[in-house]
Amino acid sequence: MSSRYDSRTTIFSPEGRLYQVEYALEAINHAGTAIGILATDGIVLAAERKVTSKLLEQDTSAEKLYILNDNVICAVAGMTADANILINFARQTAQGYLQTYNEDIPCEQLVRRLCDVKQNYTQRGGLRPFGVSFVYAGWDPQHQFQLYQSNPSGNYGGWKATSVGANNASAQTLLKQDYKDECDLKEACALAVKVLSKTMDSTKLSSEKIEFATVGKTKAGKVYHHLWGADEIDTLLKEHGLAKQEEADTG
Amino acid sequence: MSSRYDSRTTIFSPEGRLYQVEYALEAINHAGTAIGILATDGIVLAAERKVTSKLLEQDTSAEKLYILNDNVICAVAGMTADANILINFARQTAQGYLQTYNEDIPCEQLVRRLCDVKQNYTQRGGLRPFGVSFVYAGWDPQHQFQLYQSNPSGNYGGWKATSVGANNASAQTLLKQDYKDECDLKEACALAVKVLSKTMDSTKLSSEKIEFATVGKTKAGKVYHHLWGADEIDTLLKEHGLAKQEEADTG
Amino acid sequence: MSSRYDSRTTIFSPEGRLYQVEYALEAINHAGTAIGILATDGIVLAAERKVTSKLLEQDTSAEKLYILNDNVICAVAGMTADANILINFARQTAQGYLQTYNEDIPCEQLVRRLCDVKQNYTQRGGLRPFGVSFVYAGWDPQHQFQLYQSNPSGNYGGWKATSVGANNASAQTLLKQDYKDECDLKEACALAVKVLSKTMDSTKLSSEKIEFATVGKTKAGKVYHHLWGADEIDTLLKEHGLAKQEEADTG
Amino acid sequence: MSSRYDSRTTIFSPEGRLYQVEYALEAINHAGTAIGILATDGIVLAAERKVTSKLLEQDTSAEKLYILNDNVICAVAGMTADANILINFARQTAQGYLQTYNEDIPCEQLVRRLCDVKQNYTQRGGLRPFGVSFVYAGWDPQHQFQLYQSNPSGNYGGWKATSVGANNASAQTLLKQDYKDECDLKEACALAVKVLSKTMDSTKLSSEKIEFATVGKTKAGKVYHHLWGADEIDTLLKEHGLAKQEEADTG
Amino acid sequence: MSSRYDSRTTIFSPEGRLYQVEYALEAINHAGTAIGILATDGIVLAAERKVTSKLLEQDTSAEKLYILNDNVICAVAGMTADANILINFARQTAQGYLQTYNEDIPCEQLVRRLCDVKQNYTQRGGLRPFGVSFVYAGWDPQHQFQLYQSNPSGNYGGWKATSVGANNASAQTLLKQDYKDECDLKEACALAVKVLSKTMDSTKLSSEKIEFATVGKTKAGKVYHHLWGADEIDTLLKEHGLAKQEEADTG
Amino acid sequence: MSSRYDSRTTIFSPEGRLYQVEYALEAINHAGTAIGILATDGIVLAAERKVTSKLLEQDTSAEKLYILNDNVICAVAGMTADANILINFARQTAQGYLQTYNEDIPCEQLVRRLCDVKQNYTQRGGLRPFGVSFVYAGWDPQHQFQLYQSNPSGNYGGWKATSVGANNASAQTLLKQDYKDECDLKEACALAVKVLSKTMDSTKLSSEKIEFATVGKTKAGKVYHHLWGADEIDTLLKEHGLAKQEEADTG
Amino acid sequence: MSSRYDSRTTIFSPEGRLYQVEYALEAINHAGTAIGILATDGIVLAAERKVTSKLLEQDTSAEKLYILNDNVICAVAGMTADANILINFARQTAQGYLQTYNEDIPCEQLVRRLCDVKQNYTQRGGLRPFGVSFVYAGWDPQHQFQLYQSNPSGNYGGWKATSVGANNASAQTLLKQDYKDECDLKEACALAVKVLSKTMDSTKLSSEKIEFATVGKTKAGKVYHHLWGADEIDTLLKEHGLAKQEEADTG
Repeated sequence: MSSRYDSRTTIFSPEGRLYQVEYALEAINHAGTAIGILATDGIVLAAERKVTSKLLEQDTSAEKLYILNDNVICAVAGMTADANILINFARQTAQGYLQTYNEDIPCEQLVRRLCDVKQNYTQRGGLRPFGVSFVYAGWDPQHQFQLYQSNPSGNYGGWKATSVGANNASAQTLLKQDYKDECDLKEACALAVKVLSKTMDSTKLSSEKIEFATVGKTKAGKVYHHLWGADEIDTLLKEHGLAKQEEADTG
Repeated sequence: MSSRYDSRTTIFSPEGRLYQVEYALEAINHAGTAIGILATDGIVLAAERKVTSKLLEQDTSAEKLYILNDNVICAVAGMTADANILINFARQTAQGYLQTYNEDIPCEQLVRRLCDVKQNYTQRGGLRPFGVSFVYAGWDPQHQFQLYQSNPSGNYGGWKATSVGANNASAQTLLKQDYKDECDLKEACALAVKVLSKTMDSTKLSSEKIEFATVGKTKAGKVYHHLWGADEIDTLLKEHGLAKQEEADTG
Repeated sequence: MSSRYDSRTTIFSPEGRLYQVEYALEAINHAGTAIGILATDGIVLAAERKVTSKLLEQDTSAEKLYILNDNVICAVAGMTADANILINFARQTAQGYLQTYNEDIPCEQLVRRLCDVKQNYTQRGGLRPFGVSFVYAGWDPQHQFQLYQSNPSGNYGGWKATSVGANNASAQTLLKQDYKDECDLKEACALAVKVLSKTMDSTKLSSEKIEFATVGKTKAGKVYHHLWGADEIDTLLKEHGLAKQEEADTG
Repeated sequence: MSSRYDSRTTIFSPEGRLYQVEYALEAINHAGTAIGILATDGIVLAAERKVTSKLLEQDTSAEKLYILNDNVICAVAGMTADANILINFARQTAQGYLQTYNEDIPCEQLVRRLCDVKQNYTQRGGLRPFGVSFVYAGWDPQHQFQLYQSNPSGNYGGWKATSVGANNASAQTLLKQDYKDECDLKEACALAVKVLSKTMDSTKLSSEKIEFATVGKTKAGKVYHHLWGADEIDTLLKEHGLAKQEEADTG
Repeated sequence: MSSRYDSRTTIFSPEGRLYQVEYALEAINHAGTAIGILATDGIVLAAERKVTSKLLEQDTSAEKLYILNDNVICAVAGMTADANILINFARQTAQGYLQTYNEDIPCEQLVRRLCDVKQNYTQRGGLRPFGVSFVYAGWDPQHQFQLYQSNPSGNYGGWKATSVGANNASAQTLLKQDYKDECDLKEACALAVKVLSKTMDSTKLSSEKIEFATVGKTKAGKVYHHLWGADEIDTLLKEHGLAKQEEADTG
Repeated sequence: MSSRYDSRTTIFSPEGRLYQVEYALEAINHAGTAIGILATDGIVLAAERKVTSKLLEQDTSAEKLYILNDNVICAVAGMTADANILINFARQTAQGYLQTYNEDIPCEQLVRRLCDVKQNYTQRGGLRPFGVSFVYAGWDPQHQFQLYQSNPSGNYGGWKATSVGANNASAQTLLKQDYKDECDLKEACALAVKVLSKTMDSTKLSSEKIEFATVGKTKAGKVYHHLWGADEIDTLLKEHGLAKQEEADTG
Repeated sequence: MSSRYDSRTTIFSPEGRLYQVEYALEAINHAGTAIGILATDGIVLAAERKVTSKLLEQDTSAEKLYILNDNVICAVAGMTADANILINFARQTAQGYLQTYNEDIPCEQLVRRLCDVKQNYTQRGGLRPFGVSFVYAGWDPQHQFQLYQSNPSGNYGGWKATSVGANNASAQTLLKQDYKDECDLKEACALAVKVLSKTMDSTKLSSEKIEFATVGKTKAGKVYHHLWGADEIDTLLKEHGLAKQEEADTG
């Protein structure tokens, strides 16, 4: 019966469901996991990189983590091409805000405007929902560090720790078990690595397979965002005994 | 047979029904309850927060209660992303009115203009109705305190006490039993807590699970709206012997 | 066979019928009755209010009777949200006329322009007809007091007495029996009350269940329109031995 | 088989027919008859009024005969709401011509422009044909008195005597039998009454059931159009022994 | 199988056919024949008039032959309302050319621009082809007298003698048999009359049933076009022993 | 199974095919053959003319060969009305280029822009592909003489010798056998005549059945294009013993 | 079951797949292979040319390799007409950037903007995805030499070596085996030739069947792009013992 209502975004099923939005979520559930963890002094985003052919891919470009504005970065799970459209939109929105008000756009406002675009694609004929979920990490003077998540429906919410993409249910369970309210950024990174190592399909992590980014404050109190380099990731992995190199060494 | 007429907003069924609008209502009936109660000296809005994963969600952002204008707030039941679009519209409409006439928009006019947008989405092809109901609490000089409710069809009405969302039928019955015409805001809050405690699925209330807001007048006669903080809610719950903490204490 | 032609406004059935327009009328036949009666010195509109939950509904806002312009009021039967759109349109049209010609819009012209909008929604794809019928009461210098009725097809006509909504057939029969050509406004009100009392589903009338409005002339000869207050309605009902209070008193 | 081609205006059937246009004609064949007769010194239009509830309907507004311009009037058979749209268009077109050229629009040009609109609705998707036929009576300096007829397809033609609506076939037959080429307006009126009396469903005519209009020339040679009042029609009916009153008198 | 591809102009059948265009041609094959014959000193167009009710139709307006510009006339076979749209277009195009270049539009250019409109209606969704074929007779300084024919597909071609509409196949055969390359206009008229008399359904011709027009040159060398009056046609028919009157006289 | 994917230009079949484009090609395969041959000193285009009724058709207008610009001509196979639209576009494009840059448009650029239009009609809903293939012959200073071919998909390519339309496969085979790289224009014409005579359905060629055009250089080095007259074609045919007249003479 | 979801770009299947995008990829898998290899001092692109009729095709125009801007070239696999549209877009985008910022557009930005167009065609109704994949080779001051690949979904990624089109899976395997991270351009060309020779359907390579292009730096350090001539390709093939001529010589 459900098949009568699942071919258009503009149809509610008799139970009030929008099947096309649910199918879009399905597309995301096959994409690499992305997780975000809020710490007292920053936020960490970590994402699994689905390396199709690891030897040949060029590693200059981030695949999962993007800078939206000076104060907001995001992790992406789902269809990359769809994500690009929304990232472009978010960047332009943030720039427009900056030009108008001469200060960075508040995090939630940026998330909201992006989600309004998403919602639009779930309510009009001749369109399909965006097949992409985001985890946003940002900072603004009013609400300090903030972590948001949004999905194809255009819904978003604030979180202390969250995950999207493949295995996000088990990741969510792990986060719930191990997350501590007053953790600092270092502990958050450790938790992120631990969760990724347990939910990713590949048995061993490496800087080729994951991406890492943090939003934090310098000692001078200035907010920064930082996409980690391969060496930084490998160092982190080594610290937690999860690096591939170790395997290679011991293997 | 009904299935022949339920896939488009632009089709009346032979009995004159719009099935898509009814299906949209179904979507709302799975959302957290929201109730509004009109008192002589103010209005209280209360809403159930569906906390998916209570430990991890960030509690800075309201999920169910929104300020539309200085003189109107609302509670939402249904699809949050849809609600955001309409809330944006309402805020801009109210701002536009303020700029043009230099006074706050009359409550009913704001409700009406929002409902005109809703109606539009039930009459044109290639769209679906907004999957969201609202309870509005407002004040204006002419009609004083006012409580409205609207649903996906774009219909709205003035109420003394009303509820939308999951279990709204039983909430409505409770309200009808216990509502007193000349109640004051304090009594209204008590009633709201009582109704929520009986209709919510969770056995015990807490500030994490509900949101509260009031519109009232200061002693100086100035109208205010107030989204309650967690501590205020917990205090209220304790007063009525419904707080979770008590359970924890006695458990 | 008819089902092949009933899903779009743009299809004539082989017998030349527009099923969607007929289905829209069906929606109206479930709505509260509204009647209009033309007297020599004015017009009375009366309408049944479907009070879902009488104790809780706020009675500040009219549900069935609306002022379109200084010289035209109307009663509505059908989908309220649809009616609002058309009422807005009518009000703007009348304002535009006033600004352009510095006099009130002639009644029929206002009715006609509203009906042109209705017609449009029966001839174009991707739309559905407005699910609402109107009874209009107006006055202009040329044609004096006038009573019109329109339905979802966009057809309209001038009447001496008419009714729309639930039980409009039996109301029409009663009106035909009892209407007198040279009746005055007082007699018309009496007839309206009588007809309503016989066609409404509830056994006893009250000011909560019906709305009343009159267009007439003051002794000074100035045209006025008047939406009756609850007390006025109750007084009228008492006069005709139909008030609920009496029942309570004698019960 | 025909049913494969009858649901859209944009489909020719294999035999080259447009079924939607034919179905629109069917709608007209249930509407009251309208006839037009060309005389040497004028034209008469006469139409049957389908009085649903004769006692209550207000007779100020013509239902079947309309003035399009100073030199052109028309009779309508079919859906009134559709007719209104086209009548509006024709009036604006005629006004525009008058403003541009400072003389009345030639009859055929007005008819043609109205028919171009009709045609348009038979060739584009998402529309349905106008469900209305017209008989036009007009005068212009070049062609003097002229009588035209148009139907939903947008076809039109010049006639000496014609009829549209219910029973138009038998009316046409009667006209063919009795029409005389050099008849004057008085004879034409007599013929119109005779044809109507034989084709209308009601056994007796009255001014409530028919409308009459003439285009002619005053003795001063000025062209006039005249929608007849009820008394004029009754007088005419009496002259021909067809009036209802007579029946009442003699009965 | 063909039925899968015949309901839209935008579908090629697997054999590369456009069925809707072929169906439009079918509509034309039921319309009155129109023929055109090119002579050394002019062109004759002749067309059968389908007189539905000959006694009542007014004969002031041509039904089949139209003037497009000072130098081009045309005969029409098919749906008159469709033809009107294209004739309007052609007249405006010709006027525009005249205003821009101060000389008459070359015949083929006018034909081509009209055919471009026709083609457009065979390639876009939500439209149907024009159900009309034309025979054009024109003169311009470069190519002198020219005869063209176009059909619903938008194809056109130059001809010495051609026919469209009902029985055009047999008319074409007759023309091929009897056409002589160096015939003059008088001979061409004779041939036209002969072909019409053999292909028309009615046994006897009369000025009421056919229309005639010629494009030629006056003795002064000026090009003229001439729609024949009824008396001229009757004279021609008499000359060729085909007039109805003769039958009546001798009968 | 293929039939599920063949009714719209916007559907890829599971094998990645666009059936509507293939069906459009089918339409072309029934049209008269057109061939183009590149020589060292020019290009020859030759095309078969499908003379429906040879005696009556006027031979002033080319049916298969068109001048696009001073430096580019083309041969057409397929639906003439579709071709006209594209030819118009090409001419305007070439004129626009000339006005902007004061030199003739390079051949490939003109072909490309025409093909971009073609492509567009294969990728958007509510359209069908153009049912026409072209062979283009042109010259520009950079690439000298060039021969291109394009089909309904919008693909184009440069060729030394090519053919489109009916029997293009056998024509292609003949060209491959007999084409010599360093042939001059005279040899190319001979080859064209030979190929046409073998692939055309009619047994004998004549100037009525084929069209010929050449692009070349005068002795003064100026590029010219030349659509051949009937006498020139007949002379050529006689030279190669293929003329009809000979048959008549000897018959 | 999949067939329910495969006819529109705007439908997600229940597993979250977009079948139309996958079908578009299928179209590309029948097109000639194109490969790109990143070296330390440049990039090589090589592509198989599907020569339908080798003797007759003109070899002036590249079929598979295109210059997008001074600093970016690309290889194409799939539908050429679709590719042309995107190449035009890319060229205009690059020109626009140059005019605005007076420097060449960064490679990834150009790729991204082209891919945004591609994505758009996968999310809107009434369109089909572009049936074309690209391999881009570019250089910009920030990221030096870069190699990208994009497909019909609008996804793109940076690669060290990649291939698209027919047999791209086996080509990818060969590249993975033999690619060395620090190879120079000469080695890259050798690898490209080797891979093509093993994956192409034809047994022997020749300059007629493949295209070659390189982006590199002159000794002066200036970046250049170079589409290889036939002789350069043949020289390269000879060096690697793969040239056809050799076969002919030894055969």
